[in-house]
Amino acid sequence: MQPADIEGFFADPATLDLDRYLILDYTLECVGDPRLAMAHLCSEQSTAQWKRVDVDEDLRPRFAAKVIGMEVLEEREALSYPVTQAAEGRIFACRVRIAHPHENFGPRIPNLLSAVCGEGPFFTPGIPLIKLMDIQFPQVFLSAFQGPRFGVQGLRDLLNAHDRPIFLGVIKPNIGLPPEAFSAIASEAWMGGLDIAKDDEMLADPDWSPLEARCRHLGEARRQAEQATGTPKMYMANITDEVDRLTELHDIAVERGANALLVNAMPVGLSAVRMLRKHTQVPLFGHFPFIAAFSRLPHYGIHSRVITRLQRLAGYDSVIMPGFGPRMMTSDEEVMANVRACLEDMGPIKPCLPVPGGSDSAATLQRVYEKVGSVDFGFVPGRGVFGHAMGPRGGAASIRQAWDALARGVPVAEQARQYPELARALEQFQ
Amino acid sequence: MQPADIEGFFADPATLDLDRYLILDYTLECVGDPRLAMAHLCSEQSTAQWKRVDVDEDLRPRFAAKVIGMEVLEEREALSYPVTQAAEGRIFACRVRIAHPHENFGPRIPNLLSAVCGEGPFFTPGIPLIKLMDIQFPQVFLSAFQGPRFGVQGLRDLLNAHDRPIFLGVIKPNIGLPPEAFSAIASEAWMGGLDIAKDDEMLADPDWSPLEARCRHLGEARRQAEQATGTPKMYMANITDEVDRLTELHDIAVERGANALLVNAMPVGLSAVRMLRKHTQVPLFGHFPFIAAFSRLPHYGIHSRVITRLQRLAGYDSVIMPGFGPRMMTSDEEVMANVRACLEDMGPIKPCLPVPGGSDSAATLQRVYEKVGSVDFGFVPGRGVFGHAMGPRGGAASIRQAWDALARGVPVAEQARQYPELARALEQFQ
Repeated sequence: MQPADIEGFFADPATLDLDRYLILDYTLECVGDPRLAMAHLCSEQSTAQWKRVDVDEDLRPRFAAKVIGMEVLEEREALSYPVTQAAEGRIFACRVRIAHPHENFGPRIPNLLSAVCGEGPFFTPGIPLIKLMDIQFPQVFLSAFQGPRFGVQGLRDLLNAHDRPIFLGVIKPNIGLPPEAFSAIASEAWMGGLDIAKDDEMLADPDWSPLEARCRHLGEARRQAEQATGTPKMYMANITDEVDRLTELHDIAVERGANALLVNAMPVGLSAVRMLRKHTQVPLFGHFPFIAAFSRLPHYGIHSRVITRLQRLAGYDSVIMPGFGPRMMTSDEEVMANVRACLEDMGPIKPCLPVPGGSDSAATLQRVYEKVGSVDFGFVPGRGVFGHAMGPRGGAASIRQAWDALARGVPVAEQARQYPELARALEQFQ
Repeated sequence: MQPADIEGFFADPATLDLDRYLILDYTLECVGDPRLAMAHLCSEQSTAQWKRVDVDEDLRPRFAAKVIGMEVLEEREALSYPVTQAAEGRIFACRVRIAHPHENFGPRIPNLLSAVCGEGPFFTPGIPLIKLMDIQFPQVFLSAFQGPRFGVQGLRDLLNAHDRPIFLGVIKPNIGLPPEAFSAIASEAWMGGLDIAKDDEMLADPDWSPLEARCRHLGEARRQAEQATGTPKMYMANITDEVDRLTELHDIAVERGANALLVNAMPVGLSAVRMLRKHTQVPLFGHFPFIAAFSRLPHYGIHSRVITRLQRLAGYDSVIMPGFGPRMMTSDEEVMANVRACLEDMGPIKPCLPVPGGSDSAATLQRVYEKVGSVDFGFVPGRGVFGHAMGPRGGAASIRQAWDALARGVPVAEQARQYPELARALEQFQ
């Protein structure tokens, strides 16, 4: 790239029609001149060759991604993480904001991913380390998507659960139980006060627990628990499977009484979720397998918030995500970025319920509530309910007892003096 | 986990029926006792809670993932990459081989991904850094998949191209040209000797180059080039799009004369590729957006070879991958691991054509040929053909001239004395 070529990849945002652009924030470590590296970054993710040989044309004004802001944060002695065959020279840690013309591909998730975290950004000459930190969409782009069908308010209405968190539980043992036994322990948990009993993200449609039979048993148990408690309940069946089975499995599950569905976002692909959203009659919950493989390290990969935004855009009513505390090796700041990505204004796209989780129990509810700072979250213990020494009914009860204390401003430990299930949970899990 | 519990996650492979297991190789950096960390690693990816409360049972013999080999490589002073809230203690770099029972989920790609690179491995207590290095499948698992429809031999037969590499070119300018102009430059490249002219991985079905019109123009140009040269040619249309449009776009493209298709593997999802494979009438090519985000760093994420194996399993006839040399920041060893993953014996699954690429031209063909060590590869320049100073016909001719030299054992530079296109390519790109 010649010095004169670099200018074609920079623009004053005041001169751009921002409805035409996605806004991308990257952090990166480049080798050599940062302006040259950023021009390459824009070129590689859009018009890598912007004219034909021997034709007097320039495709950049309309089609090039353009730097609209950049900052050199520091010069570094070495890359944060060594990279094979990285270029040699002075190393600069930078932040860059890019306007990327969405008419290059249109409102399509696979094509968006191919451009903003594809070969372009990750194989730009002079940029061995890069992380896509955030993405913002103009209204015209968002309005091509359906987003969540139910969203936070819709979920609350279905469950008749207002002004409090939604209480979920991952049925455990997660792998290996036949449907009857699985159903019996879910039943106990509903009776103890759980709103939603869910399949583990690894439990799908195996021979030893076919989805059809599992939904039949749990659908019936769910209805019985609703009658016994006079309260709506949900059974969330995991229909994660090959994408050409998703709508069929939706129908099988819903007809038999599953009234929420779990689909692992990245393993099936976000586009398959968007497809299922067009068909679904019940709330869709996303789970996070695969995401940590590209989001954990602070200076390389893709920030988990980007994937949360895309899950909401694809149509999930709720996003299960790594939660607070050392167990999930995720900073509070990152968890909160994901919580906000679920709840903040996104134009025509409804809010979805954030479910920050990971080894939760009655002993961790206060922390999650205080960190989130509102009741708009789902709380999802596994062993905290199903491994409780008094069984799943006691485990579920301990969660509701902890919440009753928090809602009334009573210390959880004080509440435990009156409730053996809560006392036992604190003893077992704290 | 109690000391007695750890043993349930270790097994002597001689005692296992290996047809029932996937074999997983991870490298990891753990904090504290490596055996405990590895027991957790198995537990988290399978039976996280292996018994009901108050029931005398053990689900591990049948359903647990089990360590069948481990090695502590070194004690380290610090993690290779700092991780937020990682546990504290002695740090050990280890290698571990795990047998994972595939009946936990069956022959389904999304469920496989959820288990082997999902929450389990990436959120195991005491393992802040882990990389899934390789995966092996027993025959019974492989035989549930179709794999490539054509494979290497099928592609060679369609192109009547034997005993040599397959010559591809990415039509450039990649973004922004209308179909007529795009078609004209593809035409030149076919006439110059290219086997396959392909869309860029970022060019799909935008308003300014609708797939239908592009395939109409390029299909016609392709047939004309075949008549003019007496040689089969391919136009590879990129149908990467939302997954519920893939089969429709396949039909639109193929009816109009595209006779190969490009689909970006991770952006649409590997399962969507498997779905398309059931429908396709033409060879499917995979491209690598998104993969580097989790595969570049040596001590964290997922090795690219794992994704290459899964692309072959899903049914790609050819896998385009980051190639040799500093441009793609990928070690020769990693490129060759991916080349081998395409070509080596995989039971009932046909070999697929590896296409290691990245800023190639006539000047790099010898290096790629020598590194691969056989003619079973595709060679995929972009600007090396379409940015050639003598135009795409000259660019394509330069590639064929370079190959003619290599096939006859003549130095490429010597050949260039007789062929101005080759001479120009070496001057421009070397």
